[in-house]
Amino acid sequence: MSSSSDFDLPQRIVRAARKVTGSTPAVLHEPSFRGNEWNYLKECLDSTFVSSVGKFVDRFEADLAAYTGARFAVAVVNGTAALQVALRIAGVTSGHEVLVPALTFVATASAVVHCGAVPHFVESEEESLGVDHHKLREYLRGETAMRDGQCVNLRSGRVIRALVPMHTFGHPADIIGLLEVAREFGLVLVEDAAESLGSTVGGRHTGTFGLLGTLSFNGNKTITTGGGGAILTDDPEIAKRAKHLTTTAKVPHRWDYVHDEVGYNFRMPNINAALGCAQLEQLPELLVQKRCLYGRYLDAFRDVTDVRIHGEVEGRRSNFWLQTLVLDPSVAHERDAILTATNDAGVMTRPVWKLLHQLTPYEKHPRMSLQVAESLAQRVINLPSSAPLGGS
Amino acid sequence: MSSSSDFDLPQRIVRAARKVTGSTPAVLHEPSFRGNEWNYLKECLDSTFVSSVGKFVDRFEADLAAYTGARFAVAVVNGTAALQVALRIAGVTSGHEVLVPALTFVATASAVVHCGAVPHFVESEEESLGVDHHKLREYLRGETAMRDGQCVNLRSGRVIRALVPMHTFGHPADIIGLLEVAREFGLVLVEDAAESLGSTVGGRHTGTFGLLGTLSFNGNKTITTGGGGAILTDDPEIAKRAKHLTTTAKVPHRWDYVHDEVGYNFRMPNINAALGCAQLEQLPELLVQKRCLYGRYLDAFRDVTDVRIHGEVEGRRSNFWLQTLVLDPSVAHERDAILTATNDAGVMTRPVWKLLHQLTPYEKHPRMSLQVAESLAQRVINLPSSAPLGGS
Repeated sequence: MSSSSDFDLPQRIVRAARKVTGSTPAVLHEPSFRGNEWNYLKECLDSTFVSSVGKFVDRFEADLAAYTGARFAVAVVNGTAALQVALRIAGVTSGHEVLVPALTFVATASAVVHCGAVPHFVESEEESLGVDHHKLREYLRGETAMRDGQCVNLRSGRVIRALVPMHTFGHPADIIGLLEVAREFGLVLVEDAAESLGSTVGGRHTGTFGLLGTLSFNGNKTITTGGGGAILTDDPEIAKRAKHLTTTAKVPHRWDYVHDEVGYNFRMPNINAALGCAQLEQLPELLVQKRCLYGRYLDAFRDVTDVRIHGEVEGRRSNFWLQTLVLDPSVAHERDAILTATNDAGVMTRPVWKLLHQLTPYEKHPRMSLQVAESLAQRVINLPSSAPLGGS
Repeated sequence: MSSSSDFDLPQRIVRAARKVTGSTPAVLHEPSFRGNEWNYLKECLDSTFVSSVGKFVDRFEADLAAYTGARFAVAVVNGTAALQVALRIAGVTSGHEVLVPALTFVATASAVVHCGAVPHFVESEEESLGVDHHKLREYLRGETAMRDGQCVNLRSGRVIRALVPMHTFGHPADIIGLLEVAREFGLVLVEDAAESLGSTVGGRHTGTFGLLGTLSFNGNKTITTGGGGAILTDDPEIAKRAKHLTTTAKVPHRWDYVHDEVGYNFRMPNINAALGCAQLEQLPELLVQKRCLYGRYLDAFRDVTDVRIHGEVEGRRSNFWLQTLVLDPSVAHERDAILTATNDAGVMTRPVWKLLHQLTPYEKHPRMSLQVAESLAQRVINLPSSAPLGGS
């Protein structure tokens, strides 16, 4: 049925992956520390400013803004915290619904819940692995009504306040189409760019299309600060409020401890920012390596039938954070056999996340038809993606 | 009226403080990195495990448990996060009230709000700067009723679920008396030991008396991880749940991403834990220095009338995290003049926090009479407290 090879599909995939990874075990993703990490950490320790105040936090924020083209970047403790605060600033509050893809890491939904709101799961498309704006528009036209400029879910009676697209594995979603949907239904667009540092749409960096965008620098990301995230925005008032809320909402004073609203302890420590500054310097080179790695996988899998290596849509540039193998629907039933064979062979692979509407805490949450997401969940496998595999 | 000195009180205080700090400017508190910080950070970078997995997190947790005598320690991203998760595990949820001192850092109350609950502010005592258990008992007897084993606030109708004493500046509160109050009123005691690593009551470490206790390793604390905190408990099920909740509630599996409840991204990164391991090795020495520093201030202020250096209650040992000057009520009106004179002279001092019930977000929250806390807020000043000032 599937191929004429001497090997069954799992073994063909192991063999193809090993053309890239070689015979030594390969993890899914590990960071590279080949730049100034050491110097900046030492400088940070020597200054004793390892914590909430220090020059590396300021520099990291300036460097991120310069790199992404956002006017402002606010460094925080991780991507989940970044998204929670971005949503709060976007006006998401108790009783609202927020549209999030079913196909995303659980943090996208957790951040919504931490705001007291309800995640409402929406469909993905095969082309980008991101939210399908055509189907979303159609769904919202049928299921919601505009009242006083707010989009009301006719089934739940709740206001749908925001839309949070996510750029899956660094592959940009169709953000232009999604912006149009957000505009039509009065939704604030908050862009979860946790996975897409370095990815662009029409030359513009992901995370800069919405009112706010968020980044993550967890250890498995393209660059890491140990744990960390950032909020991007072009609006000076929003940036100011993001900094205020993430630093306990303390009002500046020579000595008084006055906090004018309930804030968060979400600031990024200076020592983590020091690591981030060094990592960001190497981002252009890491992106080149990751693009080369994509080319190597394309080449290695050229003759493997029934699978494809996920690539780019015209006009959108991926950071290729996690290399993505997509199975043909005809071999979707082999997913677990492929995961077993590859991991047994020291080629670390992972399926995409379990879809959020299928997790216990979200099984009764609102959702549209999720056929494509459900199909992708059975067919998407990430391959070893560390930058040095692309060649140095 | 005040003294027979040639100097007015602010200048007498500057002169006394400078006997300890010398003539060079002294900050309120800075960390000391004189041990293995450098080696462990290097080891961490070389391993590439800087983030959510790594041996330093495990080691830091084991070292903390060994040091405090708690059976389990769970390292998290900061003290606020530790308290929020501890309260959630203690059963605090939307609509509950939680008793917290008005005299504490704002994070104690923020953590309550982040659980959806309502901080209810309670009185402090002059002797320990902690919650006054005598007055609290009397207040609860008058204002609450037990219904189905739960303490109900008769004014608000809400259940009071937990009591969160805090060991102010490292000086232990009367935790034994507070435990008795908690028992009488069916309250879960969650101990905010953010400031009291190294402080003990009857030889037992603060943070280990309640069902759960929490620590902080912010940059201004006795030891630091850049940003960090920990949850302490003797209960294996609670420890397991704390780890689970703080690591996105992911269920272990070879590759599947299943999360069985709404969790948090609150884990401590390995790079911060590496710093913590090195710092914890030096804690005994730091405590000696801080105790010496207390002795030096006692000595320096011996002849300054109308003020006292806050010391220990019998049977309770302070870590002397922040050295504490307490003004006599007769000179409370000189507080701001003293703050100005000392800070102008390069002797960094700070008042205690603005009382929480006086902050805008909490001005309408329930509270008992807070006369002592209000008096202390006008009379407590922290002096430069870095360990090396105690002598090395």
